[in-house]
Amino acid sequence: MSTADNRKTVLDPWGTTVVEDYNRLYEEFGIQRFKSLLAEIPNPSMYMRRGVIFGHRNFESVLENMKRHEKFAVMSGIKPTGEFHLGTLMTAREIIYFQQQGATAFYCIADIEAYEDNKIPFEKSEKIAVGNVADLLALGFDPKRGYIYRQYKEQRVRNLAVLFGRSVTLATMKAIYGERNIGLYLSALVQAGDILMPQLEDFDGPKPTVVPVGIDQDAHLRLTRDLASKFRRKFNFVSPSSTYHKIMKGLDGSPKMAKRNSMSYFTLHENPESIAKKISNAFTGGRPTVEEQRRLGGVPEICPIYEIEMYHFVENDDDVVKVYNDCRSGKLLCGEHKARTTEIVLNFVKDHKRKRRKFVDKSREILQVA
Amino acid sequence: MSTADNRKTVLDPWGTTVVEDYNRLYEEFGIQRFKSLLAEIPNPSMYMRRGVIFGHRNFESVLENMKRHEKFAVMSGIKPTGEFHLGTLMTAREIIYFQQQGATAFYCIADIEAYEDNKIPFEKSEKIAVGNVADLLALGFDPKRGYIYRQYKEQRVRNLAVLFGRSVTLATMKAIYGERNIGLYLSALVQAGDILMPQLEDFDGPKPTVVPVGIDQDAHLRLTRDLASKFRRKFNFVSPSSTYHKIMKGLDGSPKMAKRNSMSYFTLHENPESIAKKISNAFTGGRPTVEEQRRLGGVPEICPIYEIEMYHFVENDDDVVKVYNDCRSGKLLCGEHKARTTEIVLNFVKDHKRKRRKFVDKSREILQVA
Repeated sequence: MSTADNRKTVLDPWGTTVVEDYNRLYEEFGIQRFKSLLAEIPNPSMYMRRGVIFGHRNFESVLENMKRHEKFAVMSGIKPTGEFHLGTLMTAREIIYFQQQGATAFYCIADIEAYEDNKIPFEKSEKIAVGNVADLLALGFDPKRGYIYRQYKEQRVRNLAVLFGRSVTLATMKAIYGERNIGLYLSALVQAGDILMPQLEDFDGPKPTVVPVGIDQDAHLRLTRDLASKFRRKFNFVSPSSTYHKIMKGLDGSPKMAKRNSMSYFTLHENPESIAKKISNAFTGGRPTVEEQRRLGGVPEICPIYEIEMYHFVENDDDVVKVYNDCRSGKLLCGEHKARTTEIVLNFVKDHKRKRRKFVDKSREILQVA
Repeated sequence: MSTADNRKTVLDPWGTTVVEDYNRLYEEFGIQRFKSLLAEIPNPSMYMRRGVIFGHRNFESVLENMKRHEKFAVMSGIKPTGEFHLGTLMTAREIIYFQQQGATAFYCIADIEAYEDNKIPFEKSEKIAVGNVADLLALGFDPKRGYIYRQYKEQRVRNLAVLFGRSVTLATMKAIYGERNIGLYLSALVQAGDILMPQLEDFDGPKPTVVPVGIDQDAHLRLTRDLASKFRRKFNFVSPSSTYHKIMKGLDGSPKMAKRNSMSYFTLHENPESIAKKISNAFTGGRPTVEEQRRLGGVPEICPIYEIEMYHFVENDDDVVKVYNDCRSGKLLCGEHKARTTEIVLNFVKDHKRKRRKFVDKSREILQVA
């Protein structure tokens, strides 16, 4: 398929992010298509069914153990720079999904990265992490079958980083991260430690491990897979697997939700009026006039309102298909869709906040924060 | 003074290493001459008196506290890659000297550096360190007024390294260390952590700290002094001080003792025959024939035999001056001088080994090695 073909609007309820050229990822970077494994997955998640998770590396080894009820792990985390938003929500739900499928779950508070990359002092990221972990627990993470930790306090991760350092050249780091401070490179080694720690003897030894991340994180996986192979003799590492989800568009029509652009995203903990306003002001796939929209239909594939609903807030696939069809047929107008989505989001947020309150103490206990 | 002038043989019992252009260090790198402080030092060490320690940075702040009996620290260490040799002996004695003058003494086992730079696994460096620390204790280090630790196990040092990472650019690292693996850069940050750890609250807070090292280590000091200034607001660091000793010539006439060249140096724990042979085969400042030497005298300034004696093995300054004069006058021939030096060295080694045996258990206890 040519690039031009790939970029045209596709008639597919799961076909958002039409502007991205995912084919290049398959061809140039060796990422595998997730779709071809979908039928084999016993109980695929919403993200999997809808193509939000579109690619993977070596997911077969995880799938095999999942099906055989043999040990496997899921590992991902959060950079504690602020409150949960739809991106961190997605990762959290992916981890919880795999935990529910039998994985030992690892959730990393990437406070070293938050410091080296974003200059967040550890005293501050510690406080932020308490909220983040309360969110995770409220979403259903089971701490009894999982391990939540801070990079700065986890010596096993730092020990691995020290070991790995010898095998990573400056050229590799520059290729991945550009010319950065040395701390940023150090945090990349720490991240490789995060991904491989689940395979240490302390955690029941080598095992397939899936790292669910946004496609923008693939470079870390390539670095870590390379290190797993270099240190195989010492640790008997299984090469880590990954799944890749698409990156959400900004509400304001920008290519991605970004912290520096506050109208492009919302957090689960900003006030409801602010969330409602951002949705109300959002870019959509609507037409310039009501008359045109009734006649031509909307374009859900380019619409962030449709996207957040489909990605996060509607459980039933048929309901999503109905929204898609109603939009394309011109039956559902943007104003009504925005009002409905606002209601769904605010209900979710209200319910989530209520649950989360109960987990703050537990979160402090887990993170050993006074 | 022109370079040519500076390189000619100087008539001075302490004037070895005539081939080095130390003036450049003073002029270009801002290293201060140690000689100008010598008169103020209450009880100068052998190395100080003889100009083996020839330069410093900011030693005044240490000296002031030394004289006033106020707190100060001495910090240096060893890369655990093998047994003690004359270079590590020198550093150990420098630390012990400052400890005896009232400093809290820190001795670092640089096992992270040994791994990143020399690929020594931690399991191996741990064993090597047991011997090194037994040497240090046998030489007179008092563990009750000092702290001996391994980088890999000392979290305070690693925490500092993580903090410092953000403030060190790739350009700085490349300027100091060239294009190396990322682990080597990491070990440089750890080393800055070593130098500044004595000033943490856990060790009674900010204080002047002297780091006695070979002149080849100055870049680390410049890096660390820069970091001390960048993190002054957070930790209230006093800028660390350093003293610089000259680098010993190789026994075989090479510019420095080097591990890859086994005839250039000996360890305190190789067998006496091997030490005797290396001394016997050594390059000297002698003349081609006995007749010429009687007539013209030897050149102690270029002689490694004279150097090891003057640096390490003769306590009394007058005795060294006598050797110097006897050599220059042609009275002392190289064969006799070598035989005498061999005897002195072997006696020292024998005596030291005997003492050291008693400290091996204590060393294991300090390093927590089973």
